[in-house]
Amino acid sequence: MVDQGKAKRGIPPKSDFNSWYPAIVEIADLVDKRYPIKGMDVWKPYGWKAMTLIDGITRSEMDRTDHYEYSFPLLVPEDLLEKENRLVARLKAARDVGVDPSELRIDEDDPGFKKEVYWVKHGGDNELEVPMFLRPTSETPMYTMFSLWIRSHADLPLKTFQIVNTFRYETKQTRSFIRVREIHFFEAHTVHKNEDDATKQIEEDAKMVQHILHELCLPNIISKRPIWDTFPGAWYTTAADVIMPNGRTLQVGTYHHYRDQWAKSFDLKYEDENGDSQFCHQTTFGMSERLLGAIVGLHGDDQGLIFPPSVSPIQVIIMPIASHISEDVMVYAKKIESDLRKVGIRTKIDDRNIRPGTKHYDWEIKGVPIRLEIGPRDISDNKCVISLRTGGKESISLDNLGNTVLNYLDLISNTLRENAKVISDGMIRNLPDSSIVNGELIFSSKIQDDLIYELPFDGNDSDAELLEKSTGLTLLGECENTYQEQLHCVITGKLTNKKQHLAKMY
Amino acid sequence: MVDQGKAKRGIPPKSDFNSWYPAIVEIADLVDKRYPIKGMDVWKPYGWKAMTLIDGITRSEMDRTDHYEYSFPLLVPEDLLEKENRLVARLKAARDVGVDPSELRIDEDDPGFKKEVYWVKHGGDNELEVPMFLRPTSETPMYTMFSLWIRSHADLPLKTFQIVNTFRYETKQTRSFIRVREIHFFEAHTVHKNEDDATKQIEEDAKMVQHILHELCLPNIISKRPIWDTFPGAWYTTAADVIMPNGRTLQVGTYHHYRDQWAKSFDLKYEDENGDSQFCHQTTFGMSERLLGAIVGLHGDDQGLIFPPSVSPIQVIIMPIASHISEDVMVYAKKIESDLRKVGIRTKIDDRNIRPGTKHYDWEIKGVPIRLEIGPRDISDNKCVISLRTGGKESISLDNLGNTVLNYLDLISNTLRENAKVISDGMIRNLPDSSIVNGELIFSSKIQDDLIYELPFDGNDSDAELLEKSTGLTLLGECENTYQEQLHCVITGKLTNKKQHLAKMY
Repeated sequence: MVDQGKAKRGIPPKSDFNSWYPAIVEIADLVDKRYPIKGMDVWKPYGWKAMTLIDGITRSEMDRTDHYEYSFPLLVPEDLLEKENRLVARLKAARDVGVDPSELRIDEDDPGFKKEVYWVKHGGDNELEVPMFLRPTSETPMYTMFSLWIRSHADLPLKTFQIVNTFRYETKQTRSFIRVREIHFFEAHTVHKNEDDATKQIEEDAKMVQHILHELCLPNIISKRPIWDTFPGAWYTTAADVIMPNGRTLQVGTYHHYRDQWAKSFDLKYEDENGDSQFCHQTTFGMSERLLGAIVGLHGDDQGLIFPPSVSPIQVIIMPIASHISEDVMVYAKKIESDLRKVGIRTKIDDRNIRPGTKHYDWEIKGVPIRLEIGPRDISDNKCVISLRTGGKESISLDNLGNTVLNYLDLISNTLRENAKVISDGMIRNLPDSSIVNGELIFSSKIQDDLIYELPFDGNDSDAELLEKSTGLTLLGECENTYQEQLHCVITGKLTNKKQHLAKMY
Repeated sequence: MVDQGKAKRGIPPKSDFNSWYPAIVEIADLVDKRYPIKGMDVWKPYGWKAMTLIDGITRSEMDRTDHYEYSFPLLVPEDLLEKENRLVARLKAARDVGVDPSELRIDEDDPGFKKEVYWVKHGGDNELEVPMFLRPTSETPMYTMFSLWIRSHADLPLKTFQIVNTFRYETKQTRSFIRVREIHFFEAHTVHKNEDDATKQIEEDAKMVQHILHELCLPNIISKRPIWDTFPGAWYTTAADVIMPNGRTLQVGTYHHYRDQWAKSFDLKYEDENGDSQFCHQTTFGMSERLLGAIVGLHGDDQGLIFPPSVSPIQVIIMPIASHISEDVMVYAKKIESDLRKVGIRTKIDDRNIRPGTKHYDWEIKGVPIRLEIGPRDISDNKCVISLRTGGKESISLDNLGNTVLNYLDLISNTLRENAKVISDGMIRNLPDSSIVNGELIFSSKIQDDLIYELPFDGNDSDAELLEKSTGLTLLGECENTYQEQLHCVITGKLTNKKQHLAKMY
């Protein structure tokens, strides 16, 4: 019967991740992909609820750190983009020749974001005087306004964020939550007096990312991206990557130190304590619905999703057993519901008049962390039966049930963290030994694109290029965790504790 | 000093409403209108917080009535619009000749929404195969999906809602919250088995609208819109209008009974209990950021905003007095803050080191309902001083302060409701006597476009047209509140209790 139930719902085995993932997001009713624009899914209530719970964690972090929520317009007039283009061009040119960007002249022809955005050029039957585009991110609209708002040092720091829909004209294959064309997006933008203050903000961002990913039970790798993979206009970009079960890394968050590079393009200045005009220093911090993609991918199993309790739309599903035999059953189920809600647990009674087996499969697929069953025999024992989605089942007392269940939810979070860590770590290998033959690296064993390789690396850009070309993989950048002891850089042979990872990125 | 403070902030007198309104939305820091697209304002944190509190009330009503929250894509492919155009054209044609819409053939050339939307025809450098538009509302994207989701009577009712950004290519003059091009929008869409069930939904919507407007302290007029002002595809449209202080009415909510008219265009059918195929019946219910516009307009005064406590971002501002003299002051201020938060009050201590007068003006402008002052003398009396934004000031005990303040908040809500009712009712007049001369109505006294006229009316469409043409005003439709006794219809002379209003609508 069990197998029949699963087969009916058509969940592929998770070992076939590239089939499992797109199937489970629809089977668990997170989204519907049949909307007639590829990469723009319809968020179903269950998926949307999970996403808003994730947003809730983010908002509470923003609140705790004195960021204020704004909402900027979606449309950006093309002429505002000119500043951004000049910035991108200037930095690109600077990096290509390895000199200070500010010394370089501007290449007016650089397209910047223009190739990656949706354009609005018509309102009704009219052609607009200035074409507009749908925001891919909000530097341009925000910094245009910041330059109106900031006058003096007393206006700083300015700490803003918004949670909005953004758009990318994506030409690669789309995948729910991971690569979409309308993106549910979080972005924090801050403005500071000087580089040091901006650096402190980056440190605060780093802590928030770890707190959020901890709540979502997502182990991750923190790397300072290589310069060629740095966000346009950033001095440096730090990224959090999650290792998905197919061995690809998914970038789920980034924070960027801009120094004063954007400020110079947007003429973002303030008057300091001495009355002198100074350029501001800026940072941004971004995350998206990819967090949900990582949750789905990393925690789910052959039976369906497993939600971390912190963002599970329903944390405990209550199953009345044989309620047609004893009226007490529903009375007790409601009492349990009320006890759990009192301690803040999101719960629901499943009183549908269908076979219990079918109910079990439904909630298993939807990844509800805890199932509580209550039947006539349990009532006479003053007990109920608790089943954890991560495995395990026992009979527990109805006394002090709320706190008991809270402890089980914590237990599940810890199990998810441990399991995810085992999966992630299990896909990391040391890079095999290599030698250079005809300008290419030859490895002692085959490089797989479904594994992540770690390596001591202290080389320059062309060393990095050699590594990427020879493996077909991408360097994630200098890892925050270094080696405990000094090792030989795989290219230069120099002793270093610097660690990098090579991986196929989403 | 007081006048100087006000003058500095440049608030026009509220009697000059058309200057006061656009000024106060910026002075109170709700929005910034300097974004370079007219009608697309930047939501500042204070305005956005108020809007999300309004959304919170709406969400809790939706939750209570078993509606589920979705999020549909912003972009709609043009070819989906064809169905909608055919519907609109069919109904328009039917109404023009006064026959049953379903008997009529379709006019393929009707532009429908096409003239009022923003078009996306380019992605990057590419022209898109199918042009897309930014949703003005979501009937088309939603009903396209509903027809995939609904198969049988067991799938009904389907009760959905979303809170999203929508867009209108607005050519009239824009005004913050009232007429904008990017609209913060709430829309509920429901699908039912038959007309009766849909009618029951409309009744539920009516109650929700009243509950929400009560929370916002907004008196309102409920009217069934005349047929020519009915939403395209609706059998009938009911609207809630608020009377603004300049004598114009602002439509803040509508609910539409569609019968099966949209279902026929979208082929939205279900299999009933007998296995027969039936068309669904549908309703929608919409509101927007206009609710905030009504709050600003109706409750504010010469000194600034007055927020209804239910949606005030800060309900109580705490002012420590002479805290440089006594360290106790800040201790007590924090104790008060904590006592108020315990009973769920949104509060904040203003410990800025500036003149108390300046602080008072700031919070007066921002419309914070209650100010609490605590100084050394209050502490020794175990008291603090409470000032209500609606007027009144007294010394109250620190004991049981949370509950005392909750009662004051209720008092303020009641005062706002009463004041708003006085303002609204004060702008309603009986329509002056009239006689018909040369096919036009001549009134015994001049019709003003800054008043609302009520009248007994039971005429037909051409009678209504005569009224609108002769007054230059618009009929709001048949009012839910009827006259207690029968009166003579102003045009036909027939006895009727039916009431209508003539007004200049926003």
